[in-house]
Amino acid sequence: MSLPTGLPVRDDLVGKKPYGAPQLLDVVRLNVNENPHPPSAGLVAALEKAVGEAATTLNRYPDRDAVALRADLAAYLTRQTGVPLDVGQVWAANGSNEVLQQVLQAFGGPGRTALGFEPSYSMHPLLSAGTSTGWVAVQRPADFVLTVELAVAAVREHRPDVVFLTTPNNPTGTETTHDVVRAVHEATSGMVVVDEAYAEFSDLPSATTLLAELPRLVVSRTMSKAFAMAGTRLGYLAASADVVDALQLVRLPYHLSALTQAAARTALAHEAELLGTVEAVKAQRDRMVAEIERLGLTVVPTQANFLLFGPFGDPARTWQALLDEGVLVRDVSTGPGLAGWLRVNAGTVDETTAFLRALATVVA
Amino acid sequence: MSLPTGLPVRDDLVGKKPYGAPQLLDVVRLNVNENPHPPSAGLVAALEKAVGEAATTLNRYPDRDAVALRADLAAYLTRQTGVPLDVGQVWAANGSNEVLQQVLQAFGGPGRTALGFEPSYSMHPLLSAGTSTGWVAVQRPADFVLTVELAVAAVREHRPDVVFLTTPNNPTGTETTHDVVRAVHEATSGMVVVDEAYAEFSDLPSATTLLAELPRLVVSRTMSKAFAMAGTRLGYLAASADVVDALQLVRLPYHLSALTQAAARTALAHEAELLGTVEAVKAQRDRMVAEIERLGLTVVPTQANFLLFGPFGDPARTWQALLDEGVLVRDVSTGPGLAGWLRVNAGTVDETTAFLRALATVVA
Repeated sequence: MSLPTGLPVRDDLVGKKPYGAPQLLDVVRLNVNENPHPPSAGLVAALEKAVGEAATTLNRYPDRDAVALRADLAAYLTRQTGVPLDVGQVWAANGSNEVLQQVLQAFGGPGRTALGFEPSYSMHPLLSAGTSTGWVAVQRPADFVLTVELAVAAVREHRPDVVFLTTPNNPTGTETTHDVVRAVHEATSGMVVVDEAYAEFSDLPSATTLLAELPRLVVSRTMSKAFAMAGTRLGYLAASADVVDALQLVRLPYHLSALTQAAARTALAHEAELLGTVEAVKAQRDRMVAEIERLGLTVVPTQANFLLFGPFGDPARTWQALLDEGVLVRDVSTGPGLAGWLRVNAGTVDETTAFLRALATVVA
Repeated sequence: MSLPTGLPVRDDLVGKKPYGAPQLLDVVRLNVNENPHPPSAGLVAALEKAVGEAATTLNRYPDRDAVALRADLAAYLTRQTGVPLDVGQVWAANGSNEVLQQVLQAFGGPGRTALGFEPSYSMHPLLSAGTSTGWVAVQRPADFVLTVELAVAAVREHRPDVVFLTTPNNPTGTETTHDVVRAVHEATSGMVVVDEAYAEFSDLPSATTLLAELPRLVVSRTMSKAFAMAGTRLGYLAASADVVDALQLVRLPYHLSALTQAAARTALAHEAELLGTVEAVKAQRDRMVAEIERLGLTVVPTQANFLLFGPFGDPARTWQALLDEGVLVRDVSTGPGLAGWLRVNAGTVDETTAFLRALATVVA
């Protein structure tokens, strides 16, 4: 990519590169934490039908408030977490990236700061930069697990306006306990965002169960992972109705297309089928953990559909060697606190086998 | 909507209301400048097929750079404007709102300003606020038509980082000549955005024809209007490849869903059918102009699929009276320089008839 030289681009963008992992098609792709199970023929037919119905009025703008979809998401969260939620407590956008961007537009922005515990989802600082929100990075301990003491001390020291927590945390797979969420909420007057993109793979209860007691809590979710709908780009959150009202002040009007709304509702109606893949994914993840450890490597304990493995003296070289064997994993080793580590997500049985064979070859 | 009281929302959002016109379903809807012609059965079937194909890999993230779609958009613009464009000069997002938001994130932001000539598209100042870009509003003359003198004087006085021009201008329907575009580009060192959302309805050549000579020019477009795809939410722009590179630094990764990319490509493949509605829309617009003037009202000369009509002593009351007759138009009269005016877009023959009957009743 050429630099935008000669253009009046913002100073803080000069020399930056776009976010994104390589998108290669002719390899085993285990690098972006996708669910490896494609929609069934039945679901594809249902999606065709739903989109076909939506298409008959595609000349019209979509429901600006996506009420039917948000009601379906609220009903799903109520089923999944046991917490009664209604449409006014749920918000949706084009991926959790857009949801989190809207949270930062409403509660962050110029003169305000967001704080995260790194290593974590690398979009959190980028979304902060994109909304001109200051970013405070606090380093996790060597085992990547947040303690109440560390989290509270960081929040008291930096007094952020938005705190990002994550459970399970990407890219480490580690969980964050509700004790930490409660203590951080108590220690701050700002918003507390718990990013639960991978929640359905975890044994931990959802932070949604804390909404009634923590008024500044936001729990973000996505249909890209367990729901196997990464191509649909549907992220959402649960929060108080006041928070959702505030987000409507910054959302772009008609931000969710009629097609997205129809497809996401169809996927939610096929919850059993889609979430039925979760146990298979976890089984391959557990198989990966056992086999990687058998090769003499270390795996960070994970509650997600991916894991950190290593350490490698030259992780970039190992990444390339795996790619040469036809398997694409994520080189996260240049990230904060991640020296030596690579990340891989669970695939199908065959994809997992391909990865384990490639790794055995590369390590040997 | 309740105010987000007790929450640490940004000060500049307190007391604000979300953007948006009423969404009513059981009336004749002529208030948001939609194309009244729904997709044909053949196009719906093609959309079903394309989405069905995309759905088979919906567990995977979409092409992050939307290369195939952008190539199709470039080819369309080349056909429509005669200007050879390639994929690197075209960018797309979820509606022109998101396209323009990205332009402001890259070239506006804190400490920078955008300037527009009001009345114009009311999202321009809202997008500026959402990206913490200062907003400078310059009033148009009584006939709403921008002159070189007025535009250049405003740009020299305020030295904005981004200038919004519009042709045809919403909500006035008036056009902006290329003399003005050239002169503004000459007078500023900032970016010049020409919003051509309604270009296909206009007799004026596209500002795309100026791209080769004006390096800081951005021409934004949408598939929501002439292309009759408002429900798909697909906006795009043409600019230099350097500008497009800069936008990739601020775009959210995977911002365009696989469904959106597939649907938009399908619509572009049906260009002849979709743009075939333009002449019918313009015919109803011209019928509206003639009939409204026959009622003794004034219509602002328009190059778009909508028009300003009035003046009314109590436009809110006229708006309500039209709604009571079953026709929804847009009350723009509270906007800057718009006292007394209402906006209506051309409908189908029947919708246009319904509007003209309702107006005759209300005026009588």
